[in-house]
Amino acid sequence: MGLTLTEKILDDHLVEGELEPGDEIGIEIDQVLTQDTTGTMVWLQFEALDLDEVQTELAAQYCDHQTYQFDFKNTDDHRFLRSAAGTYGAYFSRPGNGICHNVHKENFAAPGKTLLGSDSHTPTPGGLGQLAIGAGGLDISVAMGGGAYYVEMPEVVNVRLEGELPEWSTAKDVILEMLRRETVKGGVGKVFEYTGPGAESLTVPERTTITNMGTELGATSSIFGTDEKTRDYLARQGREEDFVELSPDEDAEYADEIVIDLSELEPLIAQPSMPDNVVPVREVAGTDVEQVIVGSCTNGGYEDVLPAAKMVKGREIKKDIEMIVAPGSKQAAELLAREGWTAEMMAAGVNVSEATCGPCIGIGHVPASDSVSLRTFNRNFEGRSGIEDDSVFLCSPEVAAAAAIKGEIIDPRDLADELGDLDAPGIELPDQYDGSKTDLITPDEAIDDELIKGPNIGSAPIGDPLEADIAGEVLLKMEDNITTDHIIPATSDILMYRSNIEKLSEFTLSRVDETFADRAKAADGGVLVAGENYGQGSSREHAAMCPLYLGVEAVLAQSFARIHKANLFNFGILPLTIDSDTYEQIDQGDDVEVVTDVAEAVQAGEEEFTVRVNDDWEATATLKASERERRILAAGGKLRLTKQQYEEDSGGAAPADD
Amino acid sequence: MGLTLTEKILDDHLVEGELEPGDEIGIEIDQVLTQDTTGTMVWLQFEALDLDEVQTELAAQYCDHQTYQFDFKNTDDHRFLRSAAGTYGAYFSRPGNGICHNVHKENFAAPGKTLLGSDSHTPTPGGLGQLAIGAGGLDISVAMGGGAYYVEMPEVVNVRLEGELPEWSTAKDVILEMLRRETVKGGVGKVFEYTGPGAESLTVPERTTITNMGTELGATSSIFGTDEKTRDYLARQGREEDFVELSPDEDAEYADEIVIDLSELEPLIAQPSMPDNVVPVREVAGTDVEQVIVGSCTNGGYEDVLPAAKMVKGREIKKDIEMIVAPGSKQAAELLAREGWTAEMMAAGVNVSEATCGPCIGIGHVPASDSVSLRTFNRNFEGRSGIEDDSVFLCSPEVAAAAAIKGEIIDPRDLADELGDLDAPGIELPDQYDGSKTDLITPDEAIDDELIKGPNIGSAPIGDPLEADIAGEVLLKMEDNITTDHIIPATSDILMYRSNIEKLSEFTLSRVDETFADRAKAADGGVLVAGENYGQGSSREHAAMCPLYLGVEAVLAQSFARIHKANLFNFGILPLTIDSDTYEQIDQGDDVEVVTDVAEAVQAGEEEFTVRVNDDWEATATLKASERERRILAAGGKLRLTKQQYEEDSGGAAPADD
Repeated sequence: MGLTLTEKILDDHLVEGELEPGDEIGIEIDQVLTQDTTGTMVWLQFEALDLDEVQTELAAQYCDHQTYQFDFKNTDDHRFLRSAAGTYGAYFSRPGNGICHNVHKENFAAPGKTLLGSDSHTPTPGGLGQLAIGAGGLDISVAMGGGAYYVEMPEVVNVRLEGELPEWSTAKDVILEMLRRETVKGGVGKVFEYTGPGAESLTVPERTTITNMGTELGATSSIFGTDEKTRDYLARQGREEDFVELSPDEDAEYADEIVIDLSELEPLIAQPSMPDNVVPVREVAGTDVEQVIVGSCTNGGYEDVLPAAKMVKGREIKKDIEMIVAPGSKQAAELLAREGWTAEMMAAGVNVSEATCGPCIGIGHVPASDSVSLRTFNRNFEGRSGIEDDSVFLCSPEVAAAAAIKGEIIDPRDLADELGDLDAPGIELPDQYDGSKTDLITPDEAIDDELIKGPNIGSAPIGDPLEADIAGEVLLKMEDNITTDHIIPATSDILMYRSNIEKLSEFTLSRVDETFADRAKAADGGVLVAGENYGQGSSREHAAMCPLYLGVEAVLAQSFARIHKANLFNFGILPLTIDSDTYEQIDQGDDVEVVTDVAEAVQAGEEEFTVRVNDDWEATATLKASERERRILAAGGKLRLTKQQYEEDSGGAAPADD
Repeated sequence: MGLTLTEKILDDHLVEGELEPGDEIGIEIDQVLTQDTTGTMVWLQFEALDLDEVQTELAAQYCDHQTYQFDFKNTDDHRFLRSAAGTYGAYFSRPGNGICHNVHKENFAAPGKTLLGSDSHTPTPGGLGQLAIGAGGLDISVAMGGGAYYVEMPEVVNVRLEGELPEWSTAKDVILEMLRRETVKGGVGKVFEYTGPGAESLTVPERTTITNMGTELGATSSIFGTDEKTRDYLARQGREEDFVELSPDEDAEYADEIVIDLSELEPLIAQPSMPDNVVPVREVAGTDVEQVIVGSCTNGGYEDVLPAAKMVKGREIKKDIEMIVAPGSKQAAELLAREGWTAEMMAAGVNVSEATCGPCIGIGHVPASDSVSLRTFNRNFEGRSGIEDDSVFLCSPEVAAAAAIKGEIIDPRDLADELGDLDAPGIELPDQYDGSKTDLITPDEAIDDELIKGPNIGSAPIGDPLEADIAGEVLLKMEDNITTDHIIPATSDILMYRSNIEKLSEFTLSRVDETFADRAKAADGGVLVAGENYGQGSSREHAAMCPLYLGVEAVLAQSFARIHKANLFNFGILPLTIDSDTYEQIDQGDDVEVVTDVAEAVQAGEEEFTVRVNDDWEATATLKASERERRILAAGGKLRLTKQQYEEDSGGAAPADD
């Protein structure tokens, strides 16, 4: 039985487990990337690992979300990230150099390699045959420290593309069609592997639009095989030597197959407020538009902006529309400027902004109230644009430019009918992507050899190895369904302290009890008690990090939300399940002692733990954990474990720039 | 005795008073401009005037401060401003089209005309012989309604420029030299008139750098005569027909004369944190720099960015510096892009941003903590850049680019020595300023014929004509030295409600008594009592507008700060002076009644008013007011008065586009 391309790459990188869908596997990571909103904690955790330098073949730190630098904390973060990259041997991409996925694609995406990134759109280089996965910050830190990345082995689905795209239909329409069919949950636990003659007909930039937005399907990753088009793209980027020919075996066995005939695709659009709310553009034609933005990691490349530029050249965008173009990278911006397209866009009334992805998450160019914004981005979740009750549509640059010219949503094929002289711009690659690379600072050019921390940048907390005794006061008794928003709120006034755990921890569980943080500090730690489904909601690691910082050693709950439980392991906090009787009987302020020798029991695989309350009565609590989770917990968390493993291996792992 | 150029223009526009320094004069206003942070209230006040259209020859609304639109309130403001411009017959300059002063210079600056603008750098077109003055929002509304502008007749000072600028010295160094000599208070009550062969040697863009930054001297305005260079500039802007030859009489008598020999000027720099803290660049050479920004209304023109672009072309800015170029206008941005300079700057590592002035007031590109920022801007007041304890230096684009190349402050003459192949870029005008004008929407192209108000945009309060009786409870008794920050705070969480008086008024005097606004509303108005120097601090009109909104009819204080007292008149609130005995005796909660027939007494010019407290005892309070101030007060404020005057004149004033 043959292998899929995904299986081949995974097999090449497998360090633990079997390639059985649903099983946990550990893989070696070749490259990592981080950006500015997640990168600070990645590097603070890396700092806690006490390593001299990153252990992956390549690590790259980008600054793309907060490039407008509205607060000194943004600028301080950028400086810290530069210093971290310099200190530990990563590439540093200056603010203004572009979006992580675009710059990575241009400079580093390599067929057959694995890439782990602390951004959900990390799968972008799948368009060049790289297996790229988005992950949490701690996973990136650990991977940079040489540790494997653990993930559930995905199902591999064959997306067979037939035919060729007709005029005015684009790669964006391919992924919108996927979303229309499969929904935002359709890719969970899957890798989509694009094959067939239609896949071969697409250029690399088109392929990466598809792999990028595969994230909206919930997919683990998306990938194309490589071919002459891949080689050609790499050659135009001046790095043909990175080309490797890769394809699934002819008899590869896929979990499922989806067939899309490209020749039948028409211009599509995702309506508010979900990327899978997709209809043909013609169905919503005539909708008034106030804002049009071309850019983002999905459609911010030279090849994406160019069609829009060709369409607006010599024309004027409607007076009541604001059209903003934020190129995806400096390379794209420089090429567009050098070839005169920037001047033409400006002449047509476009506001050409910096290379940034900020507006996609509501950082800059927030739409006006009660207005429609048409964007070439990948997400239109309600409120994401920076205003509640927003109305964001997602489409191709061609559909965006058509709306800017017409003043309302219009299928560009109908605009061509109206204007007469409008040709479909199609896709066009430059002969050479010959932009300057001065904004990408190599490890050899590093400026800093120590971390530069502004006043808002603290340190990552690191757990202590599990000891025999866990005992302390019940600091808080909570009800069912406590969310990570309860544990650590994510409102903007609190979010800005994400690099400052000392400050951030002051808000821990403040929505349940404002006195919690002070009491926990005064008590020098203790335990938490909760009902069912503790820690539901987002995957934020700070919901474990802050309790750890405050000295919480164990959480006794009737049940745990899956991801938060993993985070408790990762930060060395013992998650014990209790029954409802115990929950009822135990009170805030009680003294709790785990009678069992915790360190020994965790390592021995024991599931039952005796808990003694107020030196008066006892109950049994349960630890449900895999062997790997027990190893992490015993070590005092994933950071501490990785640190130990590094010390054991010392000298074994090759430095990054060997 | 001959006239100065300033006197000639004032004489042409005089509607009240005599041209005696220190006397109040009323002048007719030909043109007005507003920007996005002051414009919303200007238009809300204009709305309150109930006029159909602006009465000045020309009104222009620009969007330049909040172009990054990081809150929907910014975007809503821009849409509201577009709708106001359309409704009332003003030009509207879209966000991204540039800074008001730059775009106004390019399109409308006209020798011999008067310009009033709600921005302190309005004097910029003085470089083309226009008499341009910055003023408060209400002054602009009134001028747009056809009312005169009242100002103290300034002293006119002759600044005689001899010689010519040597290589590497620039117009920025001329104004920095003025600041070095005259300080930030040296221009108060003065107009600086630039004359002599040195003035003739300067191009219009150089002249406007000087007139723009004359504001930092505290000057009422700055002005140059016109000549062939002015004609040439206007011709290159495609509007030679606006040229008028203007100069002071040969025997003009000036209040003072300052002589500067341009040939002796060397590159200068203003150190933190005051624009007059000026030294030769060489004195601070070697200072580490982290951020360099070229742009602003002072040095953001094509002619300003070009020298910096020439200097960085083919080079790389230092890796540890962030260099941002924010062109002053779309015209400049488009020219720079079309000629290839934008691509060259990008290649050198510059982050080319939108046409905006945001960073000058801390909106975007806030410096990192504990770092030096070198900017071609006009102000470096502490904290203005968006971070406390900032360290901002002000200099020419040449000095800025030199620092970006070197990585530290360096006199560009020394950089030329180091690099060998570096020529002084000098000043260069394009043959034609042939950028697109599509972002400047003319009154004829107006999109809106009614105001579009987002949820944060309210209405301007308008006072009622003074009645015979003023009576009410003493809502608050305050101590000495209450500032306008006490009356209405300007922290960013409150500032965003500046277009929403209903919401903003909730914060009135909250720093003195949190219950004030609620109590005032419940009491349906009343009076305030204060000690000495009530209303000191900023000139913000909201400190009168919000009490008016809450129903405050009179303020009884031992003394008033000058500008706030004028604002009380302007919003129809009676400012009565009381003696210390009365102040001591009167208590919060007392019932106060002005026994005198207020309406009659104010109009009759009476100074003494009898105040009866708790129907128990009486005191005498004093009204010190000019005849004009009494007219304003009696009418119920300046808005109401202007409204009446318009109704009386109806049919008399010519519509704007006749």
